[in-house]
Amino acid sequence: MATRKMRKPKAKAVTSEKTTTKEIASRIKKSAERMVKEIKAHKDPSFTTMQRGKSNVVWDEKKGYLSLGDKTVTRNFLNVAHARKFMQTSLIMSKTNEYLLHNKTASIREIYYELKHTIEGTKENTFEGQDESDPTIVDLEHSVNTIREKLNLHANPKGTLYGNITLKDKMHHNDKFNASKLGRGGWSIMSRMEPEEIEIIETDADYLLVVETEAMFERLIEEGFPKDNHCLLIGVGGQAARGARRLIHRVHKELDLPTYVFTDGDPYGWYIYSVIKQGSMALAAHSEFMSVPKSKFVGMTLDDIKEYKLENVTENMKDGDIKRAKEMMAYPWFQNKDWQALLKKALVDKKRIEQQALANRRLDFVATHYLPEKIRNKEFLP
Amino acid sequence: MATRKMRKPKAKAVTSEKTTTKEIASRIKKSAERMVKEIKAHKDPSFTTMQRGKSNVVWDEKKGYLSLGDKTVTRNFLNVAHARKFMQTSLIMSKTNEYLLHNKTASIREIYYELKHTIEGTKENTFEGQDESDPTIVDLEHSVNTIREKLNLHANPKGTLYGNITLKDKMHHNDKFNASKLGRGGWSIMSRMEPEEIEIIETDADYLLVVETEAMFERLIEEGFPKDNHCLLIGVGGQAARGARRLIHRVHKELDLPTYVFTDGDPYGWYIYSVIKQGSMALAAHSEFMSVPKSKFVGMTLDDIKEYKLENVTENMKDGDIKRAKEMMAYPWFQNKDWQALLKKALVDKKRIEQQALANRRLDFVATHYLPEKIRNKEFLP
Repeated sequence: MATRKMRKPKAKAVTSEKTTTKEIASRIKKSAERMVKEIKAHKDPSFTTMQRGKSNVVWDEKKGYLSLGDKTVTRNFLNVAHARKFMQTSLIMSKTNEYLLHNKTASIREIYYELKHTIEGTKENTFEGQDESDPTIVDLEHSVNTIREKLNLHANPKGTLYGNITLKDKMHHNDKFNASKLGRGGWSIMSRMEPEEIEIIETDADYLLVVETEAMFERLIEEGFPKDNHCLLIGVGGQAARGARRLIHRVHKELDLPTYVFTDGDPYGWYIYSVIKQGSMALAAHSEFMSVPKSKFVGMTLDDIKEYKLENVTENMKDGDIKRAKEMMAYPWFQNKDWQALLKKALVDKKRIEQQALANRRLDFVATHYLPEKIRNKEFLP
Repeated sequence: MATRKMRKPKAKAVTSEKTTTKEIASRIKKSAERMVKEIKAHKDPSFTTMQRGKSNVVWDEKKGYLSLGDKTVTRNFLNVAHARKFMQTSLIMSKTNEYLLHNKTASIREIYYELKHTIEGTKENTFEGQDESDPTIVDLEHSVNTIREKLNLHANPKGTLYGNITLKDKMHHNDKFNASKLGRGGWSIMSRMEPEEIEIIETDADYLLVVETEAMFERLIEEGFPKDNHCLLIGVGGQAARGARRLIHRVHKELDLPTYVFTDGDPYGWYIYSVIKQGSMALAAHSEFMSVPKSKFVGMTLDDIKEYKLENVTENMKDGDIKRAKEMMAYPWFQNKDWQALLKKALVDKKRIEQQALANRRLDFVATHYLPEKIRNKEFLP
C-alpha cells in the first residue's frame, strides 16, 4: 500500500479569535470601570452592546456568511424597563471575569445556576430561568467583541468524529489520539474545541463528510466508507452544536479540506447545512469562526426520490416543514437557482425523504452507490 | 506512584445471550416452516409470542429486576384483526434471517425503511411508520427468545465513556484503546456493545459512576474527578440507550465493579436510575442482560436541597413530574422506605433540583465535596 500524503495545519489559517484572555478581561474591566465612574459622578450608568435579531443581521455575499450589522443598543440602569437586564449583565460580567482570572470554564447552564439567587432584602431573583441568562451572555460577547469560548463559557457537547485524523488535547496530559483507532465508536466531540486546547496534528483524508444523524454515521463506519474513500466523518446528531461547528470550521480551514454535508431531504436538514455553511442568525456575529462558506451539499434532495427509486419511502411534510421552506426561500443566502428550485419542489410535492430511507434499496447502497457517485460526479448543491 | 491493581473480566460472568446466531436463525426458520406447513395443509397459519404490557410484567424481587410473565398471544392470518400484523411479522422474520445469514446489522429505523413498500397490485403499504415495525421486532425477540442484538438489530447510539479502561473492537482491526487517553472528550458508545464485538480488557477503577447529563460528565472530567477518585464515567445523556445500558451492565458484571448512578433530583432522573437498576417495563424480557440490580443511587435527592444549601436554585415540578412520581410510588420495585419517603416529599414540596444546580455553591463543589462525601459515607439510596 502506497503511503498517503499527510495534510498538516497551514500555519496561516486563522480559525481562532486571537485576542488574548488578558485583553478580553481588560475589556470587561474597562466597561465595569466606566459604570463605576458614572455612578460616582451621580450619572446614570449604561451598558452598550450590538442590536440583535433579524433587523441587524447582514448577509455578506462576498465573505459568504451572515454577519452582524452596526446597530447598537444602550441600556440604562435608571430606566425601569432596563434595570433588571442591567443588573443581570453586571452579574455575568463579574462572573466571567472571575472565570478568566482563575482559568475556569463553565457551561451556560452552570453560570446561570452559579449566579441565581434571591437578592438580599428583596423577593427578587437574579434570574428566573436560563432564558434570561443566555441572551445576557450574547450581549456581553457582542459588547466586548469576542466569542463566548473566550469568556470561558460553552454550550453542551454533542457530535462524534471518526477517521484518520490525529488530535492533541493540550489540557489533558497532551494526549494524542487518532480517531480511526477507537473501534467503530469514534471520538466524542467536546463542547470547547478551541486551538488553545485541542490541536489538530494531521490527516491523510481527501475530504470531510458531515452527517446529520448518528445512525447514518454508524452505518457508514460499518460499511468501511471512510477507510475506502479516505474521508473523515463528523456526526452532528441534528443541528450542530458549537463544539462540532468549531471542529468542522477548523478542519476545513487549517487542513484545507473539502467539506461536504449530508442531511435528510427536508427543510430542517437543509437548514442544518446552511448553518454549517453560512452561519445562523442568532450567532451572526461569530460566523467568521464558525462557518464554512465553501462547503457543499451532497444530499439528500427531492430529485433523489426519482433518481434512486425511493418513491416508496417518502414521508409527508408537516406544517412546520412547509413554514420553514417558505422562510428559507426568502433568505438572501438561499437566492440561487438550485436551492430555489429545490424549495419550490418541496412546497409543491410536500414530500420529504430521510437519509436512512436509502436502506430501502439495500443497507450498503448509501456507501457503495449514493455517496460515491454523487461525490465522484460532483453532484453538489452550492 | 504505586502501581494500581488491574481488574480483568471474570471468566464466568454471564453478560451475554449465549445462544449462537446459527441457533437463532434456526428458530426463525422453524417458526416459518411451521407456517408453511399450516398453509399447505389448508390450515390457518399462526404466530405465537409473549404478551406484553403491564399485565404481563413481573417484578422479580429475588433477582432484583423486572421480567416478563408467561402469558402468550397467538395471531392468526385468517383473522381480519390479525392479518396485517401477521404479514408484518413475516417480513421482519425474513429480513432478520437474511441479516443473520449475511452477517449484516441494521438499526431499527433501517429495517423499517428496507421493508417499507406498497404491496404489488394493492394500495396497501407494508408499514405506515416505524411505530408499526418496532413492536413487531419485539414480538420476534420474544417469540424466538432472544435480545434484538442477536437478531443483528440495534437502536441509535448515545452516551460517552471516560476513564482508565481498555476496550478492544474485534470487528475493527482489533483496535485497543484506553478511554482515559482520548483527551477530555471520551469514547462515543456504540449502539451495539455485545461481547462478540467489543471486548473489555481491563481497568484499575474502584467504581463506575453513571451520570445523567453530558454537561455534568464534562464538568467532572474538567475537575479531574475520575483520575483523583479512580473511577470510570459513563454519560448517558438522559434515558440510557441500549448500547450504554449493555456497557454499564457488562462493566459491572464482568469487572465486578460497584456502580453508582447520579441524576437530576426529579422523577425523570430517578426513573433513569430505576431503568438502569431494575430494567424497564417495555424491555422486561431482557433485564437479565441489561439491568444492574446492585447499583446504588448517589443523588440527587430532595434532602440535598437543605443539606447543601441549594434553596435558591430549585425549580417547580411540572404536572408531568407529579404524575410520574405518583406512578412510581405504586411500582413494586419502589416499595422501600427511602424511595417512598423521597417520592412523598416530591409530591408535598413539588420542587426539583438539577445536577448542574450544584454550581450554585461553586463550579467544583460537585467534584470536591458533593460526590466524594456521599461516596465516602455511603450515603446511597437503594
